[in-house]
Amino acid sequence: MVEFTEEVRRKLKGSGASEGLCVLFVRHTTAGLTVNENADPDVASDMLHALRTLLPQHGMGFRHGEENSDAHIKTSLVGTSVTVPFRDGELLLGRWQGIFLCEFDGGREREVVLTIVSSGQ
Amino acid sequence: MVEFTEEVRRKLKGSGASEGLCVLFVRHTTAGLTVNENADPDVASDMLHALRTLLPQHGMGFRHGEENSDAHIKTSLVGTSVTVPFRDGELLLGRWQGIFLCEFDGGREREVVLTIVSSGQ
Amino acid sequence: MVEFTEEVRRKLKGSGASEGLCVLFVRHTTAGLTVNENADPDVASDMLHALRTLLPQHGMGFRHGEENSDAHIKTSLVGTSVTVPFRDGELLLGRWQGIFLCEFDGGREREVVLTIVSSGQ
Repeated sequence: MVEFTEEVRRKLKGSGASEGLCVLFVRHTTAGLTVNENADPDVASDMLHALRTLLPQHGMGFRHGEENSDAHIKTSLVGTSVTVPFRDGELLLGRWQGIFLCEFDGGREREVVLTIVSSGQ
Repeated sequence: MVEFTEEVRRKLKGSGASEGLCVLFVRHTTAGLTVNENADPDVASDMLHALRTLLPQHGMGFRHGEENSDAHIKTSLVGTSVTVPFRDGELLLGRWQGIFLCEFDGGREREVVLTIVSSGQ
Repeated sequence: MVEFTEEVRRKLKGSGASEGLCVLFVRHTTAGLTVNENADPDVASDMLHALRTLLPQHGMGFRHGEENSDAHIKTSLVGTSVTVPFRDGELLLGRWQGIFLCEFDGGREREVVLTIVSSGQ
């Protein structure tokens, strides 16, 4: 679980947009995106632990030959995009919320697309 | 599970927007948002029951000290936002669909942000 | 799991939009939408298999009388919408990503709404 809230915040500021939606989309099938607590890192590790318990890499009779079916399934459960509103150029995240990449298939370089859509008027 | 579809509908009408997307975002890390059946309340209670079965509050070896890791994980699985299209000022929900707040950590006051984005001309 | 990426691509082209977001929304409570691997069909069948293992149709003590509580819950876990960015009229999907309808309650006709929102200028 890799938090990247600050990077989103910086790019939002750089865009000059005032009000609307920030949408992050991960271009992979074994890594997801989520919004969750960024204060205590135990929350992120508990999440990975629970998902591993529910969906172990082996032992569920998966047929896909790359031994990463668990990672694909976790990705669909967590989701490949997150949407966060902003106002006055600031993300409207709650006090404990951060934006995370969830890496479910080993350390790799991952690509996330940011789209900013203005609302209002 | 607290349905608040009517409130969204009212605010959409009040905005005067004709066509686009309603995005709801919950500013918390132990409560999610979902779209599901609003006719039989057993569906909502079956959902909470199943999630409690898969992710019990205790017994999974969680390390986060607040005894609510299960609530954080459920939140990431269900998600912190829902997106619903509208046309002619009406939400394009299916016949059985309603918008729900999923409270995973005890009765609390929760804040949900509504963003309306226009599409089309 | 029914892939319909090409249909979305065609409608996006037909719209003439250049840059923004494609949002798909399913108007049902026992079918979801997801983005996942479209190369090896075993990924999709492993996903359905794992969800059936975690959430069997019977045996979890569901109260909803239609014997499809499992399908409702899977729908909320996978989600009822997906959001995919596009640029120069092309979906910014990763190499292995496709857009899928996840049918959790028997073969039926299902309705998905496509909304295209422009970003940028």
